[in-house]
Amino acid sequence: MATTPPTRSPELRKDPVTNRWVIFSPARAKRPSDFKSKSPENPNNNSSSCPFCIGNEHQCAPEIFRVPPDPNWKLRFIENLYPALSRKLDHPNGQNDDSSSELSGLGRVVPGFGFHDVVIETPVHSVQLSDLDPSEIGDVLIAYKRRIEQIKQFDSIQYIQVFKNHGASAGASMSHSHSQMLSLPIVPPSVSTRLNSMKEHFNQTGKCSLCQVQSKDLLINETSHFFSIAPYASSFPFEIWIIPRDHSSHFDELENKKAVDLGGLLKLILKKMALQLNNPPFNFMIHTSPIQVTDSELPYSHWFLQIIPQLTGVGGFELGSGCYINPVFPHDAAKILRELNVPI
Amino acid sequence: MATTPPTRSPELRKDPVTNRWVIFSPARAKRPSDFKSKSPENPNNNSSSCPFCIGNEHQCAPEIFRVPPDPNWKLRFIENLYPALSRKLDHPNGQNDDSSSELSGLGRVVPGFGFHDVVIETPVHSVQLSDLDPSEIGDVLIAYKRRIEQIKQFDSIQYIQVFKNHGASAGASMSHSHSQMLSLPIVPPSVSTRLNSMKEHFNQTGKCSLCQVQSKDLLINETSHFFSIAPYASSFPFEIWIIPRDHSSHFDELENKKAVDLGGLLKLILKKMALQLNNPPFNFMIHTSPIQVTDSELPYSHWFLQIIPQLTGVGGFELGSGCYINPVFPHDAAKILRELNVPI
Repeated sequence: MATTPPTRSPELRKDPVTNRWVIFSPARAKRPSDFKSKSPENPNNNSSSCPFCIGNEHQCAPEIFRVPPDPNWKLRFIENLYPALSRKLDHPNGQNDDSSSELSGLGRVVPGFGFHDVVIETPVHSVQLSDLDPSEIGDVLIAYKRRIEQIKQFDSIQYIQVFKNHGASAGASMSHSHSQMLSLPIVPPSVSTRLNSMKEHFNQTGKCSLCQVQSKDLLINETSHFFSIAPYASSFPFEIWIIPRDHSSHFDELENKKAVDLGGLLKLILKKMALQLNNPPFNFMIHTSPIQVTDSELPYSHWFLQIIPQLTGVGGFELGSGCYINPVFPHDAAKILRELNVPI
Repeated sequence: MATTPPTRSPELRKDPVTNRWVIFSPARAKRPSDFKSKSPENPNNNSSSCPFCIGNEHQCAPEIFRVPPDPNWKLRFIENLYPALSRKLDHPNGQNDDSSSELSGLGRVVPGFGFHDVVIETPVHSVQLSDLDPSEIGDVLIAYKRRIEQIKQFDSIQYIQVFKNHGASAGASMSHSHSQMLSLPIVPPSVSTRLNSMKEHFNQTGKCSLCQVQSKDLLINETSHFFSIAPYASSFPFEIWIIPRDHSSHFDELENKKAVDLGGLLKLILKKMALQLNNPPFNFMIHTSPIQVTDSELPYSHWFLQIIPQLTGVGGFELGSGCYINPVFPHDAAKILRELNVPI
């Protein structure tokens, strides 16, 4: 019969990258290995009415590019049919920083110019991102990079957020595997906070906090060019970061060869997460640097990919305080995922 | 036949209180008046197994106090059976600010000393907070205040977060009407950000941003001592703030007479929200000041109560950037709620 391990006392940890306080509260938890999604994503094979399926391209918003550029595409970059920002608005010819934005008396306002794109990651409805080969996932990552290089030409775009919502409760309105890119005329507050926090660490230690972060206890898997960890102050149970080994400020510096390596690690991690946590809905986000950075910011700016499985909800405490309560210590989550064997 | 109003262009607004950027994106929305909860809270009358019901007190964690102090109580303050923080840990005799917390090499750590309490707002399972009389809701607010005054005696507690989760998808694990109080050995990041933002506004204008905020377009309802608005840069559709008219830094300065007035306005707003939005799950949070504030911070520190109905989910964009996408402009939300008549 399994015995319950002795309960650790709760503690608060502050992440040196996100600058966020997290309450680790194991008394609220079942055993870490018992965490499972209560709303697993079921594969949906009904593709007849899905505009993202091959053959239904005419039901979609305009295409930006496809790979390869012929009818038998493997991935497509398209406009979002319901964009959060408008690519048709006049955009100021320069930066919309606080000094140039309009102050309405009630707060600052910036016109909603920007790009909201969708990446259809596969032509086949029943295929998920983690079903693709490492090189095919690499192609998706390279497509992000190609689109970022196009958008960087617009002076008024300051930050590009790449993200994936998998599963309805993680925010996905379409079940066909896709990710999104939202190009913003501002630098979002989380990005400023992250860079300030990494700068502070750099000023104190002379080192980049993500170059320094690797710890055996927190390590899940590693490859030639990347390593994955459960971060020291994970906001969510089984939160995972994939970090490039070599210091790099911007995701779009990713070389093609390294994209395949990253594709392989992302596939492994997503497979492990699905197996261990009962195919949970999840989000991933690429945390990169603002398009414009100064030379002095480069030594502490290091991009990474964050994966959050949706296992626990968010309530009034988190909304009010910005602190999170995590019932699973990251070394426990890392050990479980590290020791898990998955057939690839 | 109803016609669709002309679509406004998207815009980004930065809130002068929360310092958060919000994308207003009406192109994604149905008409503001068509917003309804898809997962309304159904009253659950099965009280036989509910530990919060009168008569089942022995199933609960220890009681802190009850009002009135006899078997026929109307509300009870109890310990949370699964506390996020421990009241039994040794606590440092002073402030756990960054300078005194331990730096582990991976990030800062503070022992998880604190209090996690529950307020059972009514002895009757089927009664919701908005069903109570204004004076009974006032009693709940006065109970918060009484408990805050007890906890302030602990030097190492720096901030007290009062919040309510109503409905499972808003984080409530119990359907019996209750709220919670989490007393923390740190000042949470959202609180520091809010105070810095209000300080900046004060330095620029010489005025408190919440004393100044009242705008006819954003007003929902007002009473002698409070007013309710849809805030200028609402992060969520139909988000509502209730603000004391008189400048006040801390919630626990609330006088008994004003508590009844606030109880009446809170009741009205919750009734309107339930009627207009199909009884949505919701959270409310009291945003107050840290226990220790300096005299120089008082002129711009102004507490308020924030109500967030759960109508739209959060996805990778919000998790990654800290920006929110709101499909409803606050003047539209305010107008709908202002003009709604509810039987009280």
